[in-house]
Amino acid sequence: MSNPMDRADRVAAKLAERELDALLVTDLVNVRWLTGYTGSNGLALVGPAAQRVFLTDFRYLTQASEQVADGWQREIAPELQQAVTGFVGPADGKTVKLGFDDAHMSVRDHTALAGRIAEGVELVAAGGIIEDLRAVKDADEQARIRAAAKLADAALSEVLTRGLAGRTERDVALDLEMTMRRAGAESGSFPSIVASGTHSALPHAVPRDVEIPKGTLVTIDWGAQLDGYASDCTRTYATGELDPRDREIYELVLKAQIESLAAVRAGAGGRAVDAVAREIITAAGHGEHFGHGLGHGVGAEVHEGPRLSQRSEATLEVGQVVTVEPGVYVPGAVGVRIEDLAIVTADGSDVLTSLPKELQIIE
Amino acid sequence: MSNPMDRADRVAAKLAERELDALLVTDLVNVRWLTGYTGSNGLALVGPAAQRVFLTDFRYLTQASEQVADGWQREIAPELQQAVTGFVGPADGKTVKLGFDDAHMSVRDHTALAGRIAEGVELVAAGGIIEDLRAVKDADEQARIRAAAKLADAALSEVLTRGLAGRTERDVALDLEMTMRRAGAESGSFPSIVASGTHSALPHAVPRDVEIPKGTLVTIDWGAQLDGYASDCTRTYATGELDPRDREIYELVLKAQIESLAAVRAGAGGRAVDAVAREIITAAGHGEHFGHGLGHGVGAEVHEGPRLSQRSEATLEVGQVVTVEPGVYVPGAVGVRIEDLAIVTADGSDVLTSLPKELQIIE
Repeated sequence: MSNPMDRADRVAAKLAERELDALLVTDLVNVRWLTGYTGSNGLALVGPAAQRVFLTDFRYLTQASEQVADGWQREIAPELQQAVTGFVGPADGKTVKLGFDDAHMSVRDHTALAGRIAEGVELVAAGGIIEDLRAVKDADEQARIRAAAKLADAALSEVLTRGLAGRTERDVALDLEMTMRRAGAESGSFPSIVASGTHSALPHAVPRDVEIPKGTLVTIDWGAQLDGYASDCTRTYATGELDPRDREIYELVLKAQIESLAAVRAGAGGRAVDAVAREIITAAGHGEHFGHGLGHGVGAEVHEGPRLSQRSEATLEVGQVVTVEPGVYVPGAVGVRIEDLAIVTADGSDVLTSLPKELQIIE
Repeated sequence: MSNPMDRADRVAAKLAERELDALLVTDLVNVRWLTGYTGSNGLALVGPAAQRVFLTDFRYLTQASEQVADGWQREIAPELQQAVTGFVGPADGKTVKLGFDDAHMSVRDHTALAGRIAEGVELVAAGGIIEDLRAVKDADEQARIRAAAKLADAALSEVLTRGLAGRTERDVALDLEMTMRRAGAESGSFPSIVASGTHSALPHAVPRDVEIPKGTLVTIDWGAQLDGYASDCTRTYATGELDPRDREIYELVLKAQIESLAAVRAGAGGRAVDAVAREIITAAGHGEHFGHGLGHGVGAEVHEGPRLSQRSEATLEVGQVVTVEPGVYVPGAVGVRIEDLAIVTADGSDVLTSLPKELQIIE
């Protein structure tokens, strides 16, 4: 961020549009995006005029002073949701509308807050304001996601030099995560999936202590978390000559992936892009075997907006970062998923994944 | 679990005590404890009489049939919180009281549920029922936590053979996590803390790319996640001859740790056990430098009930597993924390941590 208070000002502008007087920001990913604070307990209040309050507890006193810009009034308190009520009250006898994050705040926390807040303050469900702003990434964020994707690609490339067949799924997953960490990743952006043989038919398979056989497909879905941003990618490899049925499914998913990725551009609908892949897969008789959405946004979190799916109401915007990941899963038989990560541009996309998509044989 | 439906029956008994007719279980850790299901989307309903419904989506069809016992009616649906409303309705014209997890359910999900649920069903805040049951660990759970603690101890012992001084904090943390993973851990139970020099004064320090100097203290707080259960331990090491001030603080924290650990037993109050350590530290003039509670329960989650703190209302019970972790943090100067993990017994505790607590010099 060139101006560390810029994001707070953009939130304030959104509040005005929604006729809210203030916003309570409680989700830690949103707090980090807004203030730069990376600790595990913190809360922000974007209030009327220039009111910007950040609260944390004593453990993060030093960290907050290092990370949170001086434009924020920094406060230390033992119970943040209790303390924040001291900063919001009716002004000139007028009711204050305080937005809260109904998508994340628990019913219990909301009940406690409602019981403590000053009279004349109305709590208004306002989840999603910051997530909507977060969906479009600025240049700094795009650079971080690009770096995470590059790191993840390099890590898998290194792991593949050690082969796949004969290693356990768990060993490959661990090797991949360690290679990412050694290269500087904070962690994987989610637990890596390494799924071979019939297990590849489970879209969210957990790696097993089972040796990967020869002549099968192996789906690897992984990502890096780096500098607060995530990447996400999937490749499916062959460990030798394949059953023609498996190769046919691979080619089908590859075609669906290439064509739906080509449909990504600013102005395209999330539903329309999903439909490109879904029609290809359905026409081949595998519609029922593609049971998830085509893709999702990636940023500070590995799953965020916008969605590319049958129920998406999103229209893609320049600077959004999305996955394109069709899959076909034939229960008890075989599964294939191929996934790229791409920045939406005015006339297409800037693909962040560099690994080849034509079927690779890794023995 | 000898009888896979035993936990559901215990939940049902709690419902009767609270005059609830059914409980909606939405938090995934609670769902796993109750049903054995380890996927990322699932929900359970413990209803009147023998009603036991488990819902997940198509991705987990196979996994659910493998993990969730036949005593559960297993259902597949795209939207679980929507689908579950089909299984709850008023019987014989009588209102049904359906408990929900207000500590975890978001305001938004609650609003949606309230809008969909059949007339004659009353939603009642009932968070904590399963957490209360979870706080007391059965023999199988104790064995898993013991195994996690043993693995974590062995991993740190191995890492320490490679020394501390001259390595970066981040390198030590990564080495520790990889060593745990290679030994079979699913992951660390939280991001390891390795904090040296003045950074040790930050109770929740994040490991830095900074070399650990000689002649300083290094606090290492780490744990293993194994078979669904966590461990948690902290040791503070010297990397050479210490400033007498640092050694004095170490001995103070050690005394507080040993004496408060000795106060752990069934029937002791969480506040009373905390007070043992706090009085020792306060008498030495460092009360204001011990700004967190003495300890917390550990199980499927690394932080759960009961609390040992100034505000705890818990009375310890046989089979609970708690940390005892006093700390003294002098801002800008030095910090020390020493933490053991222990099973509460009738007349004391069974300490799961095997590492020495007398100050060790690791260069």
